[in-house]
Amino acid sequence: MKVAKIVLLGAGNVAVHLAGALSSAGCRIVQVYSRTLASAQSLAAEVNAEPITDLGAIDSSADVFLFALNDSGLESIINQISFSGQLALHTSGSMPMDVFNGKALRYGVLYPLQTFSRFRPVDFKSTPFFVEANSAEDLLVVEALALRLSPKVIHADSFRRKQLHLSAVFANNFVNHLYVISAQLLEKSGFLFDVLKPLILETAMKAIELDNPATAQTGPAARNNREVMNDHIEMLASNPDWQNLYTFVSNSIVKMLHEKADNL
Amino acid sequence: MKVAKIVLLGAGNVAVHLAGALSSAGCRIVQVYSRTLASAQSLAAEVNAEPITDLGAIDSSADVFLFALNDSGLESIINQISFSGQLALHTSGSMPMDVFNGKALRYGVLYPLQTFSRFRPVDFKSTPFFVEANSAEDLLVVEALALRLSPKVIHADSFRRKQLHLSAVFANNFVNHLYVISAQLLEKSGFLFDVLKPLILETAMKAIELDNPATAQTGPAARNNREVMNDHIEMLASNPDWQNLYTFVSNSIVKMLHEKADNL
Repeated sequence: MKVAKIVLLGAGNVAVHLAGALSSAGCRIVQVYSRTLASAQSLAAEVNAEPITDLGAIDSSADVFLFALNDSGLESIINQISFSGQLALHTSGSMPMDVFNGKALRYGVLYPLQTFSRFRPVDFKSTPFFVEANSAEDLLVVEALALRLSPKVIHADSFRRKQLHLSAVFANNFVNHLYVISAQLLEKSGFLFDVLKPLILETAMKAIELDNPATAQTGPAARNNREVMNDHIEMLASNPDWQNLYTFVSNSIVKMLHEKADNL
Repeated sequence: MKVAKIVLLGAGNVAVHLAGALSSAGCRIVQVYSRTLASAQSLAAEVNAEPITDLGAIDSSADVFLFALNDSGLESIINQISFSGQLALHTSGSMPMDVFNGKALRYGVLYPLQTFSRFRPVDFKSTPFFVEANSAEDLLVVEALALRLSPKVIHADSFRRKQLHLSAVFANNFVNHLYVISAQLLEKSGFLFDVLKPLILETAMKAIELDNPATAQTGPAARNNREVMNDHIEMLASNPDWQNLYTFVSNSIVKMLHEKADNL
């Protein structure tokens, strides 16, 4: 089946980037739904689609209803739609495929494992897409759709996708939070965030190229250097949360590297 | 003053990369000291220097004694050396310059803000070097030495360098630990670490190019989505440490993004 017509539900970061990529890949976005007209209009204009804010106006002649919405809004939007044979897909890492069960007849998931920001282009060609569907036929359809965007298309059921999403929370959300703390500490010391950039990039590149981040672990906790760690904890005295976070992550590193070694 | 002759103390990752870069930049490493002969020999051979394991054999005609040692070993090695006018430099982020006070007459610090792995080339040209010395004259010498390796040479006293190092612990050591946890979670779900690599790289690139990692924060905690967070905490039940870490970092994100917003 050739996917010709897609209704896109959502106008956030994921929706914006998927809309552009799908359009460029020869799919036709016929409508963009958003609760706020301005968002629907702005994205619809980019891909030459009709903006809608009323789910009753959804184009039932579309082949795919693609839900690129926040997890918390997904279920309520699904509940307001009358499905009539369209393939319903969502793009969430943590929501089970069965969120469509009993509502749509044909459904599945198209989950891009990537982080999306509004004004930053996404390299879809390197982004892995995790796909799932409630029938073997539709799995092929989702797969074909994903392959238009990236050569990296991988089957994953909802449980494994959820585990994947959890590991992405550590590798992306939590890592970024550490960047934020690091930048704020740096600001206090009067240096620009610029000075940290080569370190941030190299830390990522090492994990990627060494293929096992455990071999790249360095620092006071990796050396179990209590003196430096205690010094750092003292320096964080004005922020007990960061102090606790420092202690907690350091202990986790010490435990991983030193207690394991003790057991050998 | 032209730095002609350097004795390098240490043969670990920092020493290995500095030795190569300094040699390429026209400095002469005359000796490499390490406690273990094999390490001293191996690095000395690379830069055509004399390997030594006895601090009494140190070449006192050298211009610079460059200490690229673990923080914990630094002081005891310094105490075993007779200085006679050489410029003593260490490369540590956390040790004060004054570790040389009362021992050497001329001393300072040459701290490259970067992470070093044995078998991975380091791009020194993009690495910022933080320099300090106990006299204005020698600050120029350290600066000139650093400029041979990188155009990014910045003055920083011991206190500011220590703050810098602390922020690097968050951006490098702690980030890498999160990569390790992420990789282990992924392994459990049967996927290869490969699938996370585009996300890890993009997370770093976003922080770097958006110039403010706070604007790039996404995920369940950033959206304060308790349902997904509780789900994740449940999935981590077999590892209470990671469970605590998840809760702790998530709360820190929620606090940073939502409690601030509440105060507006």
